[in-house]
Amino acid sequence: MATSLLRVPPPQGLLRPLVVPERLLLGPGPSNVPRRIQAAGGQQLLGHMHPEVLQMMDEIKAGIQYAFQTQNQLTLAISGTGHCAMEAALLNLLEHGDTILVAINGIWGQRAADIARRLGANVCELLKPAGEYFTPRDIEKGLVQHKPSVLFITHGESSTGVLQPLEGLGELCHRHGCLLLVDAVASLGGAPIFMDQQEIDVLYSGSQKVLNVPPGSAPISFSERAREKLLRRKTKPQSFYLDMGWLANYWGCDGEPRRYHHTAPINSFFSLREGLAMLAEIGLERSWEQHQANCARLCQGLLNLGLELFVKEEKVRLPTITTVRVPEGYNWKDITAFLVDNHAMEIAGGLGPTVGKVLRIGLMGCNSTSENVNRVLGALRDALGSCHRSRL
Amino acid sequence: MATSLLRVPPPQGLLRPLVVPERLLLGPGPSNVPRRIQAAGGQQLLGHMHPEVLQMMDEIKAGIQYAFQTQNQLTLAISGTGHCAMEAALLNLLEHGDTILVAINGIWGQRAADIARRLGANVCELLKPAGEYFTPRDIEKGLVQHKPSVLFITHGESSTGVLQPLEGLGELCHRHGCLLLVDAVASLGGAPIFMDQQEIDVLYSGSQKVLNVPPGSAPISFSERAREKLLRRKTKPQSFYLDMGWLANYWGCDGEPRRYHHTAPINSFFSLREGLAMLAEIGLERSWEQHQANCARLCQGLLNLGLELFVKEEKVRLPTITTVRVPEGYNWKDITAFLVDNHAMEIAGGLGPTVGKVLRIGLMGCNSTSENVNRVLGALRDALGSCHRSRL
Repeated sequence: MATSLLRVPPPQGLLRPLVVPERLLLGPGPSNVPRRIQAAGGQQLLGHMHPEVLQMMDEIKAGIQYAFQTQNQLTLAISGTGHCAMEAALLNLLEHGDTILVAINGIWGQRAADIARRLGANVCELLKPAGEYFTPRDIEKGLVQHKPSVLFITHGESSTGVLQPLEGLGELCHRHGCLLLVDAVASLGGAPIFMDQQEIDVLYSGSQKVLNVPPGSAPISFSERAREKLLRRKTKPQSFYLDMGWLANYWGCDGEPRRYHHTAPINSFFSLREGLAMLAEIGLERSWEQHQANCARLCQGLLNLGLELFVKEEKVRLPTITTVRVPEGYNWKDITAFLVDNHAMEIAGGLGPTVGKVLRIGLMGCNSTSENVNRVLGALRDALGSCHRSRL
Repeated sequence: MATSLLRVPPPQGLLRPLVVPERLLLGPGPSNVPRRIQAAGGQQLLGHMHPEVLQMMDEIKAGIQYAFQTQNQLTLAISGTGHCAMEAALLNLLEHGDTILVAINGIWGQRAADIARRLGANVCELLKPAGEYFTPRDIEKGLVQHKPSVLFITHGESSTGVLQPLEGLGELCHRHGCLLLVDAVASLGGAPIFMDQQEIDVLYSGSQKVLNVPPGSAPISFSERAREKLLRRKTKPQSFYLDMGWLANYWGCDGEPRRYHHTAPINSFFSLREGLAMLAEIGLERSWEQHQANCARLCQGLLNLGLELFVKEEKVRLPTITTVRVPEGYNWKDITAFLVDNHAMEIAGGLGPTVGKVLRIGLMGCNSTSENVNRVLGALRDALGSCHRSRL
């Protein structure tokens, strides 16, 4: 073959070696990955239907059941990131014309509403300002007014730093003939959640927060009530990749012989398995305590620096991601850039409704240590001394 | 907190170490992963908006442009496996009521038709028996009869082992006001494809075949004609995760400042970058020659064993995956199980229309060597001597 057949030459940038600098990831995720999980992700491959892989998937399923505190059979990992799990939940639950009530107090409610609209659902919004949470009374008003078949609510609002209390919401929804769908991407493993006892119907999370697993897989689980809604569907879900009927079979949740559905991200599953194993070894309760304690230390330290916490009520502060107001006389971008350049450390600015207003500091999984609390407080003190600028 | 809060205990299976046996993966994918790519996948994480990651994404984009032989700006990797890219292509191209003509000569056309129906498209099928391919005359007849806005066709039909000739199809489609969508999951890097010169409008592939990258990311590219169709949409795509408008921005394809869209599977991208770099280093033409030569050696060896190739015409045999008829007096499952148990080697049975009829042998990327040809032929000879059973 003559070389002249190729009109697009090999790109020069790609021929240089890949260089990945070490960085302490104290933003809202991804968080750093422990060596054991890195090693699992770097393992040689197996086939997506090999018995060792199917067994590993069973172990992942059991690990998710533990992390979610559920006995739901329909429990598995989505072959995509947390966003993909949000979409999987919505597109399997909703049919064209179904009514969903979305509790919006940050970006995740906004996203869920956008996705539900794309799916042709009738979307009703329950709004709260960023930094606030919903009371059972707020929710009940919405349920009575809109008569939705699904309520979406965010447990850990990573854009605002709010931990939504879930107590009683499942029962409330069920009294009104509604399913409860909860986003726990940013909270799982860092704050107590009890899927079965709290009567949550669909729960999903991500891998790259407290689990310290690279993004690319996402735990999800459906209650028996939710599974019945799936079985009653009159139309197929708009996605084949995320069709829970097919996924349930591939994950061995339906009692049938497992069939090929898609080529799963095997190495992402290796990593997820190890992340779930490490959570099981530490134990949920110790993990919750650790996140709570380090978050409290961080908050106290931030107050000591003269900074103002964005979430006033201590009991609804998300233990994994802390939001602090950008102080007067500073540009948030100067602070985050300063930390990267001088401390090889990431913290983040706001997102969605909090852009420009807050800094977000994540202490998740192996990153939730008192040493990291001290490091980020030291770095911030340094930044506050260096980044001040006259009012723009 | 009292331990009694937890009703679901840590699962025992998860507390045992992860064990991944070494296996030579000569099925239809995934293929084995070279150490360099494994190491990239096991790297520490960075954030999904960090400049190093955005630069690496630019390099991936350039690598895909090289592998696809295209200068399309709208070129990127989907955060999911090849199936997910198929869905991304269809859901961005199609609106409710659009007509798509799907060329079906194996499982991938069937899948595309299923997905397009879920999306509410008007799906017309052009059928050929498994093992055959479409001529330009077949296609033209379908275009005239159904007047579709999109034609779907599979370049490398991994379920049947057919390589679909693409010459002239782009021009033909464009003469009939139709876009050409090509699935090259199983063929990319193993058989020549020239996206721009062949006037392909949407092309996608997977990572886990010739690129030898773990499944979890998928290259895709849209021509200017395809991009214009996206811009003319009256409705939003049914997915936010796969919305090409958002993805184009995140991948720096639209000239706007990059915004957060979703948390990308960073480590999968590290691996994909290295897989594309290795392909660029080897060079497309050498890679095509290598796959062609080893496939020819394999086919000759299979004939020498007295076996019958499923695809009769040599010129349309897929150089990456070879299909061979299950010989009389054998059960395919005995043969594949024998190879795993006695040779730590995977080959696969049929899929979809070829289930029970064929064995599939993949020689892809670093697995396409004359040594592996000899290994699999030796293992098959061994199996044929051991697995014969009287007619059932």
